[in-house]
Amino acid sequence: MARPVGDDTILGMNTPRIALTLGDPAGIGPEIVAGAWARPEVHAWCRPIAVGPAEVLRRAVALRRTGAKVVVIDAPDEVAPSPDVIPCLSCGPADACAVNPGAIDARAGQAAYEAVVLAARLALQGRIDALVTAPLHKEALHLAGYPYPGHTEILADLCGTREFAMMLYLGPGEPLGSPAGLAVVHVTLHTALRRAIDELSEDEVLIKLRLADRFMTRVQGARPRIGVCALNPHGGEGGLFGDEERRIIRPAVERGLAEGMNILGPLPTDTLMVRARDGEFEAVVAMYHDQGHIALKLLGMHRAVNVTLGLPIVRTSVAHGTAFDLAWQGRAEIGSMLEAIRVAARLAFAGDGGRPSAAKP
Amino acid sequence: MARPVGDDTILGMNTPRIALTLGDPAGIGPEIVAGAWARPEVHAWCRPIAVGPAEVLRRAVALRRTGAKVVVIDAPDEVAPSPDVIPCLSCGPADACAVNPGAIDARAGQAAYEAVVLAARLALQGRIDALVTAPLHKEALHLAGYPYPGHTEILADLCGTREFAMMLYLGPGEPLGSPAGLAVVHVTLHTALRRAIDELSEDEVLIKLRLADRFMTRVQGARPRIGVCALNPHGGEGGLFGDEERRIIRPAVERGLAEGMNILGPLPTDTLMVRARDGEFEAVVAMYHDQGHIALKLLGMHRAVNVTLGLPIVRTSVAHGTAFDLAWQGRAEIGSMLEAIRVAARLAFAGDGGRPSAAKP
Repeated sequence: MARPVGDDTILGMNTPRIALTLGDPAGIGPEIVAGAWARPEVHAWCRPIAVGPAEVLRRAVALRRTGAKVVVIDAPDEVAPSPDVIPCLSCGPADACAVNPGAIDARAGQAAYEAVVLAARLALQGRIDALVTAPLHKEALHLAGYPYPGHTEILADLCGTREFAMMLYLGPGEPLGSPAGLAVVHVTLHTALRRAIDELSEDEVLIKLRLADRFMTRVQGARPRIGVCALNPHGGEGGLFGDEERRIIRPAVERGLAEGMNILGPLPTDTLMVRARDGEFEAVVAMYHDQGHIALKLLGMHRAVNVTLGLPIVRTSVAHGTAFDLAWQGRAEIGSMLEAIRVAARLAFAGDGGRPSAAKP
Repeated sequence: MARPVGDDTILGMNTPRIALTLGDPAGIGPEIVAGAWARPEVHAWCRPIAVGPAEVLRRAVALRRTGAKVVVIDAPDEVAPSPDVIPCLSCGPADACAVNPGAIDARAGQAAYEAVVLAARLALQGRIDALVTAPLHKEALHLAGYPYPGHTEILADLCGTREFAMMLYLGPGEPLGSPAGLAVVHVTLHTALRRAIDELSEDEVLIKLRLADRFMTRVQGARPRIGVCALNPHGGEGGLFGDEERRIIRPAVERGLAEGMNILGPLPTDTLMVRARDGEFEAVVAMYHDQGHIALKLLGMHRAVNVTLGLPIVRTSVAHGTAFDLAWQGRAEIGSMLEAIRVAARLAFAGDGGRPSAAKP
C-alpha cells in the first residue's frame, strides 16, 4: 500500500487511517467534519479521509471558511491529508447537494447509507483502521429504503455480528478518577422503560459484561473493574423493591466472575456512578438508557463518544443527532466530533497492541 | 419566651431555633450531631438544641472529644447553646445507651421515634423553627412497634399531611448554575421500578409539581423554572418508546401551566439534568428514585440534603443512613449533617419572609 506523501512528515508509519463519514447532508454532519478537519490535532492523531458526497463537503468547507481543498480520491492513501487538503471518497446520489438543510429527504438517507457502507467495507478489508460516523437521520434512512434504527444495526449487519452493544465512553480527564476513562455499556437501549424491564435477561447482561470487559481490556491492557447497576432503587433493598437483582443480574454477575471478570454488583446505581467517577471502576454496565446516559452526560456531555462494541472494526460516533434546527448555519459545535476522532484513533492503536507513534492521541 | 443568654451575642433575635434529633443510638446519628455541634458555623446559622437520650449524646461527645457539656433542659431556650454547651431535651428509654453499636434494637427504635415526635411537636407549636433529623433504622423502628417506612411518614402523620414528597436539595454552589440551588422532587420513590411505572399518575405528578413550585418560590422569592423528566428514553421519541409522556406527564404539566407555574417538559432526562446543572431550572420533577438520585449524587453527594415537602414545618435530614458498619468509631463524616443544618436554617428564614439576621446561612 502506498505511503502517504506531502506534509505529513510528523506522522509515524502507524498513524491510524480513519474514515469520517458525512452522515445526513441535511444535518450538521458535513459541517462538523469540515470544522474538525481544520484542527491540527486531528492530523496529529490520524490520517483522515472523508467519505460522502464531495460536493456537499465542498459546500460545508465554504460554510466554515476553512479554505481546505476537497480532492476526490478512489482509494485511501491516494492523497495525503492535511488541514488544507481533504481526500474524499465520494459517494451518494449525484444530486445529494440539492437536499435542503433540515429536510427529511430520501437522497440524504441514501448518501448517509452509502457512506457508512463504503467506510465499513474499507475497515473490514483493513484498508482503514477505524470509522467515525457523523449523524444520520432515521426517517431519511427509512425513506431511502433502509429500515434500520441507526448506524449500529447497519454495521452489525455488514459485519455479521449478533452480539453488540452501544457504549458511551468518556476518555480520561476531569472529573474522572480512572486514568483509562469510563465506559458505560447499556443492556437495553431504545425502548420504553417498561419494555426495557421486560427485555432484561441474564444472557443479555452477561453478553454486555463480556463486551465491556473486552473493550476496556483492549483500552488499558488489563482487565477492567466493572460495576454493575441494579435495576431498582437501593439495589432492590434485599428484594423489598423488586427481584430483578436476584433473578437476573446477580446470576449474570456470577457467570461473569466464573469467567474471570472483575465485577462488583448489582450495586445501587446512584452511589455506583459516584464511585465510578471517583475511579473505582473503569466500566459500568447499565440496565437501561437513562441510567447510563444521565450519569455520562453529567460527567462529560461534550466529551462523551458513542462506540459500537462487538464489531470486528473500530467505530465511534458523535453522541448527538443531526440537529436539523441548527444545520448549515455554521454554528454547530465540533467538540464531540473531535473527541470521536481522538477516541477512534486511540482504539485503533489499542487494537494493534498499542504500537508507538509520533503523536499518540 | 425567654431570650437566650450567655455567649451568643453575635446572634440576632431571629436566628432560627433548630432541633437536631439523634436518630438511632446504634448508628452514626449521635456522633454526627456531636461532631457538627463543635463547628462554629453551626452556631452562626442557628440556635440548636439536641433531642434524644442525653446519656447517648454524652458518650458521642466523648467519642468525638469535642469537650462540650451536655445540659439537660425541659424546654427550648432554657440554656444558650454554644460549641461548648449542648442543651438537650432528653427522651427515649432510660437504657437507650445500653444499645450496642450497629445492633438492631427496639430500644434504639423507641429512642429515635420519641425524638422525632418531640421535635415535630415543638415545631408545630412554633417553639422551634425547624428540625434536622439524624438517621433512624427502619427495622429498629418496626421492632419498637412503629411500622413506618421512615421519618417522612411519621412526620406526615403527626402533621396530618396527605400530600407530601421527598426532595433532594442541593444548595447554591459549584457546579450549579442556579443561584437558588436545585431541588429534585420524586413522584415515586421507594418501590420497584416496575411498580413505580404502574404508580405514576397525572394527579401525583401534579401534586409534586405544586410542591416543587411552592418550595422553590419560598426559597428564592419567585416562582421557579421547573423541568419535568420524561419517563422513557429520548422523552418517549414521539410515542415510539412509550406513551406515559403523552398519557400522564404532559396532561399534568398542562394543568400546572394553567395554574401559572413555569414548567418545561416532559424532557429527555439525560439532557434535562445537564440543563438543570447549568442553571436553566431551579427544580426538577423526577418520575422515579434513581432518575433524580443519580443526578443529584453526582452533582453533590456530600452536599445533598433531604427535605420533606408538604409539611407545615421545616424538616431536613442527612441524605445517608445509619451506617451501622461505621457507627461509634468516631470516623463518620459530618458534611451532610452540616449541610442539613445550613439548609434548615435557610428555609426557616425563607419561611418567615427572609427576615434579616446577623448571620444568614
